[in-house]
Amino acid sequence: MTKKAVVLLSGGLDSSTCVAIAQKKGFDVYGLSFSYGQRHTIELEASKRIANAMGITRHEIIDIDLRAFGGSALTDDIDVPKGRDEEAMDAEIPVTYVPARNTIFLSFALAFAETIGADDIFIGVNALDYSGYPDCRPDYIAAFQKMARLATKAGIENDIGVRINTPLIDMTKAEIIKTGVELGVDYALTTSCYDPDQAGISCGQCDACILRLKGFKEAGIIDPIEYQNDIFR
Amino acid sequence: MTKKAVVLLSGGLDSSTCVAIAQKKGFDVYGLSFSYGQRHTIELEASKRIANAMGITRHEIIDIDLRAFGGSALTDDIDVPKGRDEEAMDAEIPVTYVPARNTIFLSFALAFAETIGADDIFIGVNALDYSGYPDCRPDYIAAFQKMARLATKAGIENDIGVRINTPLIDMTKAEIIKTGVELGVDYALTTSCYDPDQAGISCGQCDACILRLKGFKEAGIIDPIEYQNDIFR
Repeated sequence: MTKKAVVLLSGGLDSSTCVAIAQKKGFDVYGLSFSYGQRHTIELEASKRIANAMGITRHEIIDIDLRAFGGSALTDDIDVPKGRDEEAMDAEIPVTYVPARNTIFLSFALAFAETIGADDIFIGVNALDYSGYPDCRPDYIAAFQKMARLATKAGIENDIGVRINTPLIDMTKAEIIKTGVELGVDYALTTSCYDPDQAGISCGQCDACILRLKGFKEAGIIDPIEYQNDIFR
Repeated sequence: MTKKAVVLLSGGLDSSTCVAIAQKKGFDVYGLSFSYGQRHTIELEASKRIANAMGITRHEIIDIDLRAFGGSALTDDIDVPKGRDEEAMDAEIPVTYVPARNTIFLSFALAFAETIGADDIFIGVNALDYSGYPDCRPDYIAAFQKMARLATKAGIENDIGVRINTPLIDMTKAEIIKTGVELGVDYALTTSCYDPDQAGISCGQCDACILRLKGFKEAGIIDPIEYQNDIFR
């Protein structure tokens, strides 16, 4: 029987690289995406395109409304910061931080994994480019895995429980892009921008665009997506 | 400034007792309930009645669809077991177990707590009467708290982070009921049944009804709610 893995799929380049890595390791991929009141719903369209193009086994989109709590520029009417250098990004937890987002996403992934009988969850977090989010750090992921093993039937019955795989955790954005290109990921299908225009075209100036563009530049690869202005490239 | 606490509020007797305990400790209570495709939506009505009657500060109901994954008698068309004794309940993880439910609920509580600036979350889990659910054990709760402290801004900035309070963890159902009655909880507003009829009347025969009725009997207090047949009392 083929091994199953739940892969958190945001529609960005990190998560689509995770899909390719999981498939390369021989997993049947069960993609999980969230409609969480994010301003950039274009992400969800990207996640569907990636799920189709990469031939994953099943793709679930879960509706949750994080706007009920408020508190983030990604779900509220707070302005997304533009044109910051990496030093400014690292100096503080950004307003684009959504409270407990990865904890909520991983909890649903855990429920999905338990239901389909998967022992593996993949999440594309990244310690180098994490840009100040507390829930992207290796210590956090290790603590989540420990909690998850105590939370589930599988953990009790088999004394194994789920593994949280973070294949990108020590990679630079450039390394992630090179890996994905080698594995055949079509980055033209992905989107990273926190603040795209109505047609879904990336702004080129938010933290996510800046990190993405820098990654492509360092990898010596042309970013195949469109930007609102070519001067940002 | 009054301290704030997020209390997970199911509409059952454990969570309403938690509200009373948190208020007694001087917290402003922010109640959090979930519409998760449970068959017993009567729970949500009970949670609203309790929130009103107990004068909590704010009550949020979050819509999430655990049915997307399936796998539990509480959200699927699997029959709820009836008439089991406690030995049978303890012998296995019940089909009413919802995969990763408490992990998902606590994750949302963490997001809510972080947004309103609360350092405390209350959950009415119970190690003695936990009836086979892996995510009601003290080890699990401790692991969740550790993970939560690593997950949040508060954990990073203040080196404190959230506390997961489980005031009922070592109490019997009878002790919980006596405590609640002393604190003035009106248990007539609560509901516990996994399989009520269309009018919301409790079945008296599912695991939850059996544990509740036994608790009231041991406490020497009459359960003020109605049952489908008085022979179950």
